[in-house]
Amino acid sequence: MKRTLSGSLVFILLLSIGVSAQVKHTDLMPIPASVESGDGLPLGITKSFSVAFAGHTDDRLKAAAGRMIERLQRQTVLELSRSTSGDPAAASLVIDCKGPGSAVPKLGEDESYTLTVTASRAVLAAPTVTGALRGIETFLQLVQGNRYGFFVSPVVIKDSPRFPWRGLMIDVARHFQPIPVIKRNLDAMAAVKMNVFHWHLTEDQGFRVESKKFPRLHTLGSDGNFFTQEEVKEIIAYAAERGIRVVPEFDMPGHATAWLVGHPELGSAPGPYEIERQPGIFEPALDPTNEEVYKLLDVFLGEMAALFPDAYMHIGGDENEGKQWDRNPEIQAFMQKNGIKDNHALQAYFNKRVLAILKKHGKIMMGWDEIFVPELPKDVVIHSWRGQEALAAAAQKGHLGVLSNGYYIDLIQPASDHYLVDPVPSDSPLTADEKKRVLGGEATMWSEWVSPETIDSRIWPRTAAIAERLWSPADVRDVKDMYRRLDIMEVRLENLGLMHRSYQNTLLRRLAGSLDIADLKTLVSVIEPVKLYQRYQQRPQTMLAPLTGLIDAARPDAEGARRFSYLADAFIAEDQDKTAKPLLRMTFERWQTDGTRLAVTMNENPALKEGAQLGADLRDLGKIGLEALANDGSSASASKEWYAAAIARLEEIGKPKAACEFVVIEAMKRLVNKTSKIAVAAQ
Amino acid sequence: MKRTLSGSLVFILLLSIGVSAQVKHTDLMPIPASVESGDGLPLGITKSFSVAFAGHTDDRLKAAAGRMIERLQRQTVLELSRSTSGDPAAASLVIDCKGPGSAVPKLGEDESYTLTVTASRAVLAAPTVTGALRGIETFLQLVQGNRYGFFVSPVVIKDSPRFPWRGLMIDVARHFQPIPVIKRNLDAMAAVKMNVFHWHLTEDQGFRVESKKFPRLHTLGSDGNFFTQEEVKEIIAYAAERGIRVVPEFDMPGHATAWLVGHPELGSAPGPYEIERQPGIFEPALDPTNEEVYKLLDVFLGEMAALFPDAYMHIGGDENEGKQWDRNPEIQAFMQKNGIKDNHALQAYFNKRVLAILKKHGKIMMGWDEIFVPELPKDVVIHSWRGQEALAAAAQKGHLGVLSNGYYIDLIQPASDHYLVDPVPSDSPLTADEKKRVLGGEATMWSEWVSPETIDSRIWPRTAAIAERLWSPADVRDVKDMYRRLDIMEVRLENLGLMHRSYQNTLLRRLAGSLDIADLKTLVSVIEPVKLYQRYQQRPQTMLAPLTGLIDAARPDAEGARRFSYLADAFIAEDQDKTAKPLLRMTFERWQTDGTRLAVTMNENPALKEGAQLGADLRDLGKIGLEALANDGSSASASKEWYAAAIARLEEIGKPKAACEFVVIEAMKRLVNKTSKIAVAAQ
Repeated sequence: MKRTLSGSLVFILLLSIGVSAQVKHTDLMPIPASVESGDGLPLGITKSFSVAFAGHTDDRLKAAAGRMIERLQRQTVLELSRSTSGDPAAASLVIDCKGPGSAVPKLGEDESYTLTVTASRAVLAAPTVTGALRGIETFLQLVQGNRYGFFVSPVVIKDSPRFPWRGLMIDVARHFQPIPVIKRNLDAMAAVKMNVFHWHLTEDQGFRVESKKFPRLHTLGSDGNFFTQEEVKEIIAYAAERGIRVVPEFDMPGHATAWLVGHPELGSAPGPYEIERQPGIFEPALDPTNEEVYKLLDVFLGEMAALFPDAYMHIGGDENEGKQWDRNPEIQAFMQKNGIKDNHALQAYFNKRVLAILKKHGKIMMGWDEIFVPELPKDVVIHSWRGQEALAAAAQKGHLGVLSNGYYIDLIQPASDHYLVDPVPSDSPLTADEKKRVLGGEATMWSEWVSPETIDSRIWPRTAAIAERLWSPADVRDVKDMYRRLDIMEVRLENLGLMHRSYQNTLLRRLAGSLDIADLKTLVSVIEPVKLYQRYQQRPQTMLAPLTGLIDAARPDAEGARRFSYLADAFIAEDQDKTAKPLLRMTFERWQTDGTRLAVTMNENPALKEGAQLGADLRDLGKIGLEALANDGSSASASKEWYAAAIARLEEIGKPKAACEFVVIEAMKRLVNKTSKIAVAAQ
Repeated sequence: MKRTLSGSLVFILLLSIGVSAQVKHTDLMPIPASVESGDGLPLGITKSFSVAFAGHTDDRLKAAAGRMIERLQRQTVLELSRSTSGDPAAASLVIDCKGPGSAVPKLGEDESYTLTVTASRAVLAAPTVTGALRGIETFLQLVQGNRYGFFVSPVVIKDSPRFPWRGLMIDVARHFQPIPVIKRNLDAMAAVKMNVFHWHLTEDQGFRVESKKFPRLHTLGSDGNFFTQEEVKEIIAYAAERGIRVVPEFDMPGHATAWLVGHPELGSAPGPYEIERQPGIFEPALDPTNEEVYKLLDVFLGEMAALFPDAYMHIGGDENEGKQWDRNPEIQAFMQKNGIKDNHALQAYFNKRVLAILKKHGKIMMGWDEIFVPELPKDVVIHSWRGQEALAAAAQKGHLGVLSNGYYIDLIQPASDHYLVDPVPSDSPLTADEKKRVLGGEATMWSEWVSPETIDSRIWPRTAAIAERLWSPADVRDVKDMYRRLDIMEVRLENLGLMHRSYQNTLLRRLAGSLDIADLKTLVSVIEPVKLYQRYQQRPQTMLAPLTGLIDAARPDAEGARRFSYLADAFIAEDQDKTAKPLLRMTFERWQTDGTRLAVTMNENPALKEGAQLGADLRDLGKIGLEALANDGSSASASKEWYAAAIARLEEIGKPKAACEFVVIEAMKRLVNKTSKIAVAAQ
């Protein structure tokens, strides 16, 4: 299997012939700060590919290089050398680190890197190992192939993040998400250069971290589904290996039911308490007037401060309505005695006490918007779920802030919506100094409606668009190109072990009870779960119910719908474009055929019956589409009656069923409008 | 969401209308010993479904019922009660166990059960919890649905296994297979009522279990990929929960390179030794003349005897060629001095010494065929990889035996081949008593060519056919019906978390570097990896190479090929059957279209280029097929020249490329023969 030198030269020469204009730099995600294409020969990736270090090395960097080689090997099906101890002068990829950076990553550390690829080798230079980790991900995204082999085109990339805080929050409380889910999502985060895993560990519906000091918290508050402290350490180490900080959240004083199952004495009402099984906002809250609460928090947060090395600790603080406080005469007396005028002020009092505890344990406090009051010390970080304005207001008052409004990925909105949300929009009223206080943002995966089986599909690939917003220059805003690259990210993420795509067939086969799911796939390619907070209203479930229905198989950003929309618009733009029309016809025929079958089979299947009307709707979408295409001015579909009926039917089809909705309705309407106009013109 | 009684009655009445002749008992796998369909109303499975215990209960049974409810919930998308502490008189499923059975399962325990389903309830009666575990799997397989809901048809099943030893061996040494792989395969084994996990832990290529007594064994012999003793205990407990024994194998005196990396002094040549990276048979062997070997084995096997509770311990013993022995003058002198005439006798001496050690530690010895010598004590179990005759010979000599010849699932043979292999065939020469010594069989997953990503696809669903051979009555031998039920098992197994099916799209998307894999799917649906030991010859790889090529994406029993074969035979049998012909034409058109595209795109993709000819072959298969279908006696394909050319091209296409082969060639030849005959008749 050894190649001679002349063989190598022939390979490189042949390679260069095939490379013209095939540069893959445009497929990078997130887009780097600066990319300059070179024009020499490409760097071949062959069996003799090797990695070596020129500067600082440590175990973290070596492990990262090992993972990189493993991934490259899997992708290329080439057996590569796993040694990284060779001579850098002879290596294909030289990693030149100036120093270790922070072994436990911390806010604001230098994540920059420079990647220079020529025909003879690639050099990845970085001031820190963390920068090298980011550059490794870029290098892997640059590998492409043609008939002559794999290669990387010459390029110089100089890259660093726009924001220092690029996070993903995972709520492991409402639905527990075990270690493998967390690990594969950390891998995915690293692939898109995110650097903060915000671990939402406590909620009304579950207390998910082991406390050795107060074991009743996790043993009674978790149904047995919690992370041991050993597991927490394992996750922190796994994240650190990937240059990701871990910021834990212990939500208080509200969202606290699960705390109170084991410690009802801390509540603002007598209890007893049970783990909450419904989604929503609930009354149980810690009692801010009870000194025992602060005693417990001091010990518990001290325990957690020792467990979690990050400088920041998140105390939640959101959505506490204070109804238990209103009804508790002792709390009311306390407020009166201490001149606390309302629940908001009482929570501010609570936060102040907690802040002192966190400071004592060496942590910086972070909390959701609600904790922001004028007298709040400036070193508290505001995490905004309410919006850019709230974030800007906090920044103007001197606070550091992180944006999550607009990044609520649990709400099933399209990636395009999240993508265009900017923590510091171009029309931001902030001064340059104030802008620096906006640290970045976090995608938030609230877990009311996700199981370990489905969660990846709700996080990915859309979160890659948010990651790009937080890493790339502000003017990177081309939605269509973002979606093009998101399709590529789908495959890259799947190769890391993410299940955002593969779970769907598994779930559909389970629903169908059969290997034959072609028609169901047609349906789910054009429907999505309902958006925002509609799901529970339309299809109520508890936290113990199975998340294995059609709605769970449907994904955000249904790709069949997106492709259909492009196709319909191509047809409309080009006046019955010759390419688009036959493809549209094929699509409509498939909808009609598969929909006709589904209308029957879904009705006979008790697991799918709730969505049987969607089958009939799909059939009718196909029928309307075919009629529209047939419109030559003389057909029935040229009539006003047909038009009115078609639009009315589309309205009806557009209404959610089984909490799923077709997302081709607007494109269908444009198509129907267009062919009707053509018809009118022809008449 | 509460239903009224009258609602329930309506439901049951409606249900019964839809049920006629829909009994799903015929979908069971393995087929029970006795099934009697009832003729009353079905048992409805609604939101009010409940499980309760009437007899013995323990944690194992409760956990099993919990898992069952969870699975039923996932399948039906119904939120079910998780309580099993209700009144059995009111429960939908009553589990009536007489006693616990063996909490650590053991050979020969009673696994029988009786399942009686009527309209009012199901009763699962079993003498042991293990029997109840088997019956739970049967109950889950009985659940079906129609437009009125989920239900189980009335039935009485009396079931018990034909053989007491129904195993799956997984070689975790050549390619390490981590805990999640083992656990999901244990789940799958339980689903098909297998009861022995044979854990092949040591090999030339890896020593995969922690020894606290001799840590150099696993630390130096495993690249860091080994099971800690805690993990071993976790697996044993997980298996016991599912009624599965764990029999460990420590292969000796051959297949021992990895032992010698850390302990070269135990070898029959001086060393040093390195972990073997190639597949094959290697020389390194323990030195049977060295007392230090027995001292280490005494301590090590004692340590393992304490760790593994099963009564049996497997010492391998296979494929030791004794080449190191031949070349070692001290060993030769020892043999001469002790009258040991050849290497076979020397191994028998070794085995006798090891047997004494195992007896001392309370274990029964088991080994592959090679350990069988006339003087071997009768209580040693012979594990036959050589065949039924060897097994019968051992049984005639009084040995217990287990068959694996014919169950080598790593060899990529179709399930039908394995299915018809019987440990005690109908023409067995054994007496009734001798037959009882044949304990059963084991599917063997040797791991030269499987990664954690692909291993499920090499084990499942084919192993379900072997499981049925070992559980069901001997006269259950209908291959076509086995395949029909195997398709259903695919879905059932996937629902347990097995990746035998879902991994394929993931791997194809990685190879294609794209979401668009429709044409590759067409190809892999009709090709398979080469069989037996051809893979390494045709496409050599080391144990460190990636298993991510086209050959790894291709599965045994390619289902497109099987369906094509049925279709072709239907067409042939029915003289151009009106149903088969258009379906065949569609198939051929797709082959031609996708093959034409693949011939180009695979050639441009360095990860797929090795198989590009397969694309061109697929195109030509489609072309030949279309020509054959067009044969009306007047077309070109009616000529002898066309026939000769078509057969010659099929021969060429049938030859493996990239170590993959088309498995539609025989059916294509039958089709071409048939249409040529029609043509000749028409002329």
